[in-house]
Amino acid sequence: MSLMARIETAIREVLQQQQLSKAPPKLAESLDYALFPGGARIRPTICMSVAMACGDDQPKLTNAASIALELIHCASLVHDDLPCFDDANIRRGKPSLHKAFDESLAVLAGDSLIVMAFETLAKIILQDPNRGTQLLLTLAKRTGVPFGICAGQAWETEDHINLSAYHQAKTGSLFVAATQMGAIAAGQDAEPWFELGARIGEAFQVADDLHDAVLCEEELGKPAGQDDLHGRPNAVTELGVQGAIQRLTDILAGAISSIPSCPGEAQLAKIVRSYAEKLTPVTPTQSTYTFAKMPTTFRTRSQNLSSIVNP
Amino acid sequence: MSLMARIETAIREVLQQQQLSKAPPKLAESLDYALFPGGARIRPTICMSVAMACGDDQPKLTNAASIALELIHCASLVHDDLPCFDDANIRRGKPSLHKAFDESLAVLAGDSLIVMAFETLAKIILQDPNRGTQLLLTLAKRTGVPFGICAGQAWETEDHINLSAYHQAKTGSLFVAATQMGAIAAGQDAEPWFELGARIGEAFQVADDLHDAVLCEEELGKPAGQDDLHGRPNAVTELGVQGAIQRLTDILAGAISSIPSCPGEAQLAKIVRSYAEKLTPVTPTQSTYTFAKMPTTFRTRSQNLSSIVNP
Repeated sequence: MSLMARIETAIREVLQQQQLSKAPPKLAESLDYALFPGGARIRPTICMSVAMACGDDQPKLTNAASIALELIHCASLVHDDLPCFDDANIRRGKPSLHKAFDESLAVLAGDSLIVMAFETLAKIILQDPNRGTQLLLTLAKRTGVPFGICAGQAWETEDHINLSAYHQAKTGSLFVAATQMGAIAAGQDAEPWFELGARIGEAFQVADDLHDAVLCEEELGKPAGQDDLHGRPNAVTELGVQGAIQRLTDILAGAISSIPSCPGEAQLAKIVRSYAEKLTPVTPTQSTYTFAKMPTTFRTRSQNLSSIVNP
Repeated sequence: MSLMARIETAIREVLQQQQLSKAPPKLAESLDYALFPGGARIRPTICMSVAMACGDDQPKLTNAASIALELIHCASLVHDDLPCFDDANIRRGKPSLHKAFDESLAVLAGDSLIVMAFETLAKIILQDPNRGTQLLLTLAKRTGVPFGICAGQAWETEDHINLSAYHQAKTGSLFVAATQMGAIAAGQDAEPWFELGARIGEAFQVADDLHDAVLCEEELGKPAGQDDLHGRPNAVTELGVQGAIQRLTDILAGAISSIPSCPGEAQLAKIVRSYAEKLTPVTPTQSTYTFAKMPTTFRTRSQNLSSIVNP
């Protein structure tokens, strides 16, 4: 079974176990809407890839860890799209959840997905209490306060942003969770896997900044120019398009070299390199860009990849 | 140490462990604002009372279970007060969280509290993996879909409400969690404790209906007449004030008689009876009430008790 098929099957299994036929119908429908069709499922893909590189000796733990991560990611997208945050009308090319249903259902769907993520891990604890507990604590740390995505989003409400804490928490935390939870599920120490997750997170942040700055809403599948609109820090504003592309290349090289020694190290490096190639725009020889005059090669590749960067 | 002191100390300990000094300052402040000063802390009080009636042989588990419950309850209050739900300006006699901060912080504070609740339980799992897992699964079941408070709140968005599922999920679920988690923390089976939690939940629903229908905003410490305003089912609308009071008395009698056999059964019955007396308004001999002409005895007692019913 391909990684993607394994992920989709595992998400469907989790939803089936929820007895959604007994839930309020609109809430049940909104949960399905938030989860399907998915984007590139990057976080669970990374989690599973790391677990497989480490032996994947308990596939049920790997599946639970990967799906719990995706549930938290989807919850964060639903809440971040709300009018009090990004006020986004579209997500993954269809109406955002609060537009398709309403705001109250978007709040409740997000809440329910967070609960479901922890419930998914709780169900596998007794199979291996040590690994199960570490998985729970890692997911909680990378979701809540002070280091998780909730804290990352909250930095945006501050007058004085701690930029490093902001980036690490907002984009980096679920990638760190992905690599560390993959390692934990396969019985490895989490700590050596921090750097890989953090670097992948940085790379995605820069790639997301590039996309946010240069693509239109239709190409992105969500509103464009949000960073500029909300005055958020953005690598393109800071470094220019070429500088941001160079930064992305450097980060991804660092990510590959940070992979800890493990049985599937070479294969994992190949997977990360493949992501790196997809994320890094083809750069023509011109050295000056304006947003109004983006190179066609970048625009074309970026369109295909918009679902990978922030699905 | 009194029960209330034990609860407050345990909540403070949980917050201290969160390293809030590293979080975005407004989010950290909003979490404190959501938790302190607390209301009557009924759910953790019930949870601890049941655990103590069953021997309380692992007080750390009892504390974690009780505080996790209170964190979920506070999260639900913060989210329920949002403009897309009750649009409540006050809570516990002070501005609701989204009024004191803003809507985005209210969403994030609620999310963070949910995560913190599961993290609190995750931290004690290895002390007793069996009990810890049951605590996690019970909290998740009574918080998420299809039987938890998220589902309960979502029933209000449906055109056709399943009234029984609605009441059980919206008000009953965290009381069922309270009795069951108290029993689990002390090593007892959860199932026999369902009925006590469900009946206490019913009683609080009727008491809340009475308060919502007959008290003013100042007396309640939150907006009054919300059920009528939002077209929600209410026992007073259905049975009248006297009928609702009779129903409350009957439910509480049933709650006491449902207490499972345990070492502290008599003491627990005394505690529930004491709540019952506080919840049940003094009824004068007149048989007819109008909301505009409430008996003074009811109004006076109710003012003192408003923080108990829905703090």
